[in-house]
Amino acid sequence: MLDLLNQHRSIRKYTDQPIDSKLLNQLLEAACRTSNTGNMQAYSIVVTTDSDIKQQLAPTHFNQPMTIQAPVVLTFCADFNRFSQWCEQRKAEPGYDNFQSFMATTIDTLLAAQTFCIAAESVGLGICYLGTTTYNAGEIINILKLPKLVVPITTITVGYPADMPAQTDRLPLEAVIHYETYHDFTPSTIDQLYAEKEDSELYKQFITENNKETLAQVFTDVRYSKKNNEFFSDKFLHVLKDQGFLK
Amino acid sequence: MLDLLNQHRSIRKYTDQPIDSKLLNQLLEAACRTSNTGNMQAYSIVVTTDSDIKQQLAPTHFNQPMTIQAPVVLTFCADFNRFSQWCEQRKAEPGYDNFQSFMATTIDTLLAAQTFCIAAESVGLGICYLGTTTYNAGEIINILKLPKLVVPITTITVGYPADMPAQTDRLPLEAVIHYETYHDFTPSTIDQLYAEKEDSELYKQFITENNKETLAQVFTDVRYSKKNNEFFSDKFLHVLKDQGFLK
Repeated sequence: MLDLLNQHRSIRKYTDQPIDSKLLNQLLEAACRTSNTGNMQAYSIVVTTDSDIKQQLAPTHFNQPMTIQAPVVLTFCADFNRFSQWCEQRKAEPGYDNFQSFMATTIDTLLAAQTFCIAAESVGLGICYLGTTTYNAGEIINILKLPKLVVPITTITVGYPADMPAQTDRLPLEAVIHYETYHDFTPSTIDQLYAEKEDSELYKQFITENNKETLAQVFTDVRYSKKNNEFFSDKFLHVLKDQGFLK
Repeated sequence: MLDLLNQHRSIRKYTDQPIDSKLLNQLLEAACRTSNTGNMQAYSIVVTTDSDIKQQLAPTHFNQPMTIQAPVVLTFCADFNRFSQWCEQRKAEPGYDNFQSFMATTIDTLLAAQTFCIAAESVGLGICYLGTTTYNAGEIINILKLPKLVVPITTITVGYPADMPAQTDRLPLEAVIHYETYHDFTPSTIDQLYAEKEDSELYKQFITENNKETLAQVFTDVRYSKKNNEFFSDKFLHVLKDQGFLK
C-alpha cells in the first residue's frame, strides 16, 4: 500500500481503453467514504465522458490534451446546494452562503478527490490533476451548469496509462515537516533544502529553455507569475461572490 | 485496497502505544509524493507530540479529547513562506501573496493530508480530522508560531485505535454524482436521497436528543448554524488578510 503511494506519478497520456462503468462507480463509492464535515457530504462530482463537453472544457484547462484524450474527466465541486435544498424542505434555515462553509466544503471535496485518485491508481488507472480549475471556474460553471453554492475546485483526468513517466523529485522531508512548532528558514537552510533540486540536469535544462538565470525565476516569471496570480485571484473571488459563498 | 478505503471510519480513541518515528516518517514521505501544483510543495506539516503544546491546541479544537489523547497531532498548513523565501534568495520576485495562491496551496495541503490518512490506515493506525482548524486558525497560528503566508487548514489526530466504531452512513451515490452536467434536484429527488438517512434510528434519536422537529434543524440550529458560520467566516477572512493571502 505504501508502495502504491510511493509510486505515484501523474499520467497525462491514456490508452483508448474505456473505464468500465461498474468499476468507476466502485471508485466513486470509495471516494464517498472519505471523512467529511459533519457527514453533510457537501460536495459533488461531475463525470464527463461526452466528447462534446470535453471539447468545451478543454479551453478552460488551457487546452491541456488530457482533457480531451482521457476517457473520463471528473470535476470535483464544493457544493452546499443539495444540503441547503434539503434544509429548506425540512423547515430548517440553511446558513451555508458564507466563506467558512466554502472552506468546509472545499476541504471535503479535496479529501474525496484524493481518495478517488488513490483508489483509481490501486486498480491500474492513471490520474492527473488539472490546477486550472480555479483559474476558469466561472467558465466551467457555465459549461457544467453548476447552480449557486456550487463551485468547481479541482479536475481529475483518468484513464489507463499509455506511458509511465519518470517520477518527479521531492524536497527532503525537512523542507515540509516542522516539529512541535514552525521553525522558520535561514538562507543557509533554504540553500541546503533546494540544493539537490537545483543540481539536477532536468531543472538546469528548464532554466536554459526558459532563458532565465535561476530556477525560481522560471516559476515567478513564467509559470506562476504575480501578475497572473493576481488576475486569477480577482476572477475566482468574483466567482465565489456570484455563487453565493462571499458577500 | 478498495476494501481499506471502504472500511474507513474516524477513530477518536487511541491506545497508549506511541507511533514509531521511523514509521511516521514513512507515512509523511508517502504524503509528500502526492500530486501538487507545479511541484512547488507549497505546504507544511507541523507534527505535535509534546503534551504542553497539545494542551495549548486543545481549546482551539473546542477541547475535543482526541487533541490531547492522540499520540500525534498533525496540523496541515497552506504554506507559501518557504517557496517565497527561496525565490527571494534566487533573484526572483515571489507573487504568492494572493487568493489564487491560497487556493493552490490549500488544494495541495489537503491532498497530502488525505494521502497521509490512507497511508496511516494501511498500517493499522486510526485518524480523525478536526474541522475546527479553520474556526480558530488565528489562535493556532500563535501557538504553532506560523509566519506570514502560512495558514493552518486541517488537523489530523493519529494513533492506534482503542475502539472500532460503527461506520457512519453515506447518501446514495446519485446524491453526489452528476453525469455530463449538473442535474439540479427536485423536492421529490431530495426526499428520495435523504429517505434512508431520515429513516435511521440513530438520526431519529439525534432529533429527540436535540429537541428538534427535523434532522436538518439539528444541523442548522445546533451543529452548523448560520450565525456561527458567519462569525467564523469573518474570523478566517481576517486570518487570510493577516497572513498575507488576501488584500
